[in-house]
Amino acid sequence: MAEFADLLATLSNWGKWGPDDELGALNYITSEKRVEAAGLVHRGESFSLAIPITGGQGPQGGAGGRVNPMHFMTATGCDPTTTVPLGGDAGYTDDFLGIAVQGGTQWDALCHIFYADRMYNDFPASAVTSAGASRNGIEKMHDQFVSRGVLLDIARLKGVDCLEPGEAIMTDDLLAAEKAQGAQFGEGDILLVRTGQMGTTKNFTDWSRFRGPEPGLHFETAELLHERRVAAVAADNMMVEATGHLPGYYVPFHMLALVNLGIHLGEFWFLEALADDCATDGVYEFMLAAQALPITGGTGTPLNPLAIK
Amino acid sequence: MAEFADLLATLSNWGKWGPDDELGALNYITSEKRVEAAGLVHRGESFSLAIPITGGQGPQGGAGGRVNPMHFMTATGCDPTTTVPLGGDAGYTDDFLGIAVQGGTQWDALCHIFYADRMYNDFPASAVTSAGASRNGIEKMHDQFVSRGVLLDIARLKGVDCLEPGEAIMTDDLLAAEKAQGAQFGEGDILLVRTGQMGTTKNFTDWSRFRGPEPGLHFETAELLHERRVAAVAADNMMVEATGHLPGYYVPFHMLALVNLGIHLGEFWFLEALADDCATDGVYEFMLAAQALPITGGTGTPLNPLAIK
Amino acid sequence: MAEFADLLATLSNWGKWGPDDELGALNYITSEKRVEAAGLVHRGESFSLAIPITGGQGPQGGAGGRVNPMHFMTATGCDPTTTVPLGGDAGYTDDFLGIAVQGGTQWDALCHIFYADRMYNDFPASAVTSAGASRNGIEKMHDQFVSRGVLLDIARLKGVDCLEPGEAIMTDDLLAAEKAQGAQFGEGDILLVRTGQMGTTKNFTDWSRFRGPEPGLHFETAELLHERRVAAVAADNMMVEATGHLPGYYVPFHMLALVNLGIHLGEFWFLEALADDCATDGVYEFMLAAQALPITGGTGTPLNPLAIK
Amino acid sequence: MAEFADLLATLSNWGKWGPDDELGALNYITSEKRVEAAGLVHRGESFSLAIPITGGQGPQGGAGGRVNPMHFMTATGCDPTTTVPLGGDAGYTDDFLGIAVQGGTQWDALCHIFYADRMYNDFPASAVTSAGASRNGIEKMHDQFVSRGVLLDIARLKGVDCLEPGEAIMTDDLLAAEKAQGAQFGEGDILLVRTGQMGTTKNFTDWSRFRGPEPGLHFETAELLHERRVAAVAADNMMVEATGHLPGYYVPFHMLALVNLGIHLGEFWFLEALADDCATDGVYEFMLAAQALPITGGTGTPLNPLAIK
Repeated sequence: MAEFADLLATLSNWGKWGPDDELGALNYITSEKRVEAAGLVHRGESFSLAIPITGGQGPQGGAGGRVNPMHFMTATGCDPTTTVPLGGDAGYTDDFLGIAVQGGTQWDALCHIFYADRMYNDFPASAVTSAGASRNGIEKMHDQFVSRGVLLDIARLKGVDCLEPGEAIMTDDLLAAEKAQGAQFGEGDILLVRTGQMGTTKNFTDWSRFRGPEPGLHFETAELLHERRVAAVAADNMMVEATGHLPGYYVPFHMLALVNLGIHLGEFWFLEALADDCATDGVYEFMLAAQALPITGGTGTPLNPLAIK
Repeated sequence: MAEFADLLATLSNWGKWGPDDELGALNYITSEKRVEAAGLVHRGESFSLAIPITGGQGPQGGAGGRVNPMHFMTATGCDPTTTVPLGGDAGYTDDFLGIAVQGGTQWDALCHIFYADRMYNDFPASAVTSAGASRNGIEKMHDQFVSRGVLLDIARLKGVDCLEPGEAIMTDDLLAAEKAQGAQFGEGDILLVRTGQMGTTKNFTDWSRFRGPEPGLHFETAELLHERRVAAVAADNMMVEATGHLPGYYVPFHMLALVNLGIHLGEFWFLEALADDCATDGVYEFMLAAQALPITGGTGTPLNPLAIK
Repeated sequence: MAEFADLLATLSNWGKWGPDDELGALNYITSEKRVEAAGLVHRGESFSLAIPITGGQGPQGGAGGRVNPMHFMTATGCDPTTTVPLGGDAGYTDDFLGIAVQGGTQWDALCHIFYADRMYNDFPASAVTSAGASRNGIEKMHDQFVSRGVLLDIARLKGVDCLEPGEAIMTDDLLAAEKAQGAQFGEGDILLVRTGQMGTTKNFTDWSRFRGPEPGLHFETAELLHERRVAAVAADNMMVEATGHLPGYYVPFHMLALVNLGIHLGEFWFLEALADDCATDGVYEFMLAAQALPITGGTGTPLNPLAIK
Repeated sequence: MAEFADLLATLSNWGKWGPDDELGALNYITSEKRVEAAGLVHRGESFSLAIPITGGQGPQGGAGGRVNPMHFMTATGCDPTTTVPLGGDAGYTDDFLGIAVQGGTQWDALCHIFYADRMYNDFPASAVTSAGASRNGIEKMHDQFVSRGVLLDIARLKGVDCLEPGEAIMTDDLLAAEKAQGAQFGEGDILLVRTGQMGTTKNFTDWSRFRGPEPGLHFETAELLHERRVAAVAADNMMVEATGHLPGYYVPFHMLALVNLGIHLGEFWFLEALADDCATDGVYEFMLAAQALPITGGTGTPLNPLAIK
């Protein structure tokens, strides 16, 4: 607890890029970084890191308005006619998607978490109203999230299919994975942390491992991420962080990473196919195109991140 | 009309990649193509080609279930408490997005249009039911849409801010733009066609130019796109194609490109900033990351395409 | 099975009120009937027969698009300002409801079930498209569903809190309840059948009894309802009918009552408070105001039925 | 203005029914009143006072999240199969309704408007959060809104089809209508005020008269409603009240009636058919069943009010 209080008081990027900054650690992604990222595309192989967006299915349980995706067809190929006539014996199909912005593969926006009524860069929590976030909304990142990605496959490092429920990934684990897997991470990189949880879903139908305490990053790792100037972090679990390690604090890592450091967090990412490939060719770095939908005032975004090797 | 009938009868990719193929012209994007695309990243500049996704705003009028996006906040920074307590004086904000899959910057899936009850590759229209598309759905493209992009700035070619309502872009126009702008397009490329329409929206608030007849591709251009083996085409209008040029046929280009050739079509793309940059540096080619959300059985997808130069 | 086949072939109201009729057995509710119903209001007591419509809660599991209600606040009393300024230091709150039309206390419209491609009164199933039902939609009943209501409290008749899972209520049970409870039912009445299921929900939070086989009406009772010219039937379970009694047929009672006879069916009704009152004063008849929302082309409707004694 | 300030300071029901009261003026509807109301049913004729709930149509323009209804079919009669198999060659149709709770024929809940941060009966505005209203929500009225209804047909009184835009209905107008139409209104009655606006919609397709200043009740009428102990008031316009009569105050009547007096307000009611009937038989009183959906924490409710004569 003393350790957390200390980190909370000392780790901070507030003001670092000016009082109006809403990009946070994404500032570390420079033009040079994007060029470097593109230079990692050697084989031309593309990996989708998103779970399917399927009507009525997914990891959410419905609490607090977080429902699984809803997919409504507004025109089908079975209807005798369509609302807008197309001529030429042609027809169209159409649909509507309802999705909890945080439900499924996503980024947390910097407005998603606050404490003591402040968000990243000292913006007040009250800037997020029923009309959306006027500060730190995800739309501010519309041309962001392209960089070098580095996978840290912690499950593989530890020789297991999946970490234990609630198991915390410590700073030493990250360093060991970096060493074992041969891809150093640093300024402007987007870090992908694999716990193995997504491999337990039986083709995205069984989410039981995401209901209880989850394995994930210990809050202490925020210090390393800060030192290394990481741009963003994503994982294959529900919270990025391990839960239950600090009595009275449900999201200590979020408080440090998202609020203090402005590090966007990606949750529910599908890393299985990519991890298998990295284990095969021994290359744990790649170009990552993980752009957000420009949802005005959004607290996050669904997305389909692509890793390109 | 005879010309259209002739093209409809002769232009086809059905069966070309086997009877089960659902990728269509995206088959032209090879691993080598992706490597080539990444090789176009020289300056490390990123351009978002999406219009904002803003609650209650956008190009749709509501007909046939096509509404503008709905953005609901399910937790704000103004609420005294939140549903899930986080401890540590922390709180969260959360939201829900409702979006017509075809409303805003999007891709048409290959299941979006059919004629004579058949979709691309001879799949029956009846494969698209109230439960979604079991064939040609957008989720099949989850790791696709990364390639070389080429911008054909037709408005700039013609020296106007925006083409006239209903003005058709002919094959000769495409060839002239290619020549004038110095970027040849060919196999596996994704073509971006600029009419200038998006520049008339006054910061995305005035959509009047998208209501009547629109400028866009003439159906005859499908032949050139086929010959050149283009992978996909997107434009800054509502339909990609010019409307009103073939009596009795509302979407002749869609019938040729989407149904016969399996060429995905992107609509409502924002090309203004990219076009200005291309005019400035004279480089009309770039890496394009335009991946779809993996919406199971979806007839299209919202997306945020990034052009990276 | 032979019994069912016989009933299916012989019980029918098709054509009885003309080839264009879409009211079905509601035709039995005459002006005189409504006057009679109003005459049953003696004590002026009103009972709501609806379960709460609560965001994220309810009997549905999400299969086939049947989700529990979604309740989104679009303006709260906590926001610093509201979108539309009201002056005078005033503010407003606002919200949006998403509801599966069949999820919660509802009526099945006559278009909700069909067999052999026909709905009530021989209308084709294909009249229900992605644009809604052009025949037998719930909006056709906009001024209906006010009549005499009669409660048949089968659980109380049998001296149990709740019937057994899958227990079928037979014709003799209805007759016995009618006799024991002293309220004869007949032409134009709306019948309310209590199984006791709703009493097991622990204040609408535990829906386990609604997941497996449920107690309800045996299909044979359709014959009595037809003879007595009942206008509509509602119950405190999910399907009105008992499930699992006719191999290969999941909804035999629906086929007879809804399709053949045009008898609307009400599901998920809350009858506990009303039943207690009826047991206390011995009066099992009342005025019932159970009007539908006029949802154009709807397959049913949420509603708040009131019994007034 | 002085008049308004005076009324705002003096008209109040706060505390009248105790500090926890959330029913407001509905307290005036007693059991005796309901019996009296039922006694008005003489001819057995039923009038629906709701406008249709039609997907994509209606009076709303989308501002502030107020969209027109959305109606999605999740199973149709055209689909080859359905998600849940029913056996016996049977099928089902299903749908989903998305509706702004205030969009269409509705009641304003007592939590819908506040000023100086207080709602009816001195509850704080902050009781309405993203999770809904914990005070003055519409679900508290689940067994309410059945009473004697009285129509005051002001348009007919003035001999016009529709009042002028912005025309204010004064206390004297109400008294004149009462006298001319022969139905005195008083304690516990629900008042229906007809401006004629709904008659201008050309079968609910043209809402232009609802966009600008509307005719409706002048704020001064709140005094008469209070004296007479009216239970609730509804009208055939968007706001019940006339707009634009008190500089700087957009909803002065709401402030008096809803906040100070706890009088629920009904908007977008369809009174044309009922008014014609009242003019014909000269009877302007009836039983009114205008119950709310029990939306937990809702700021209002869609409904289908029935007037029964």
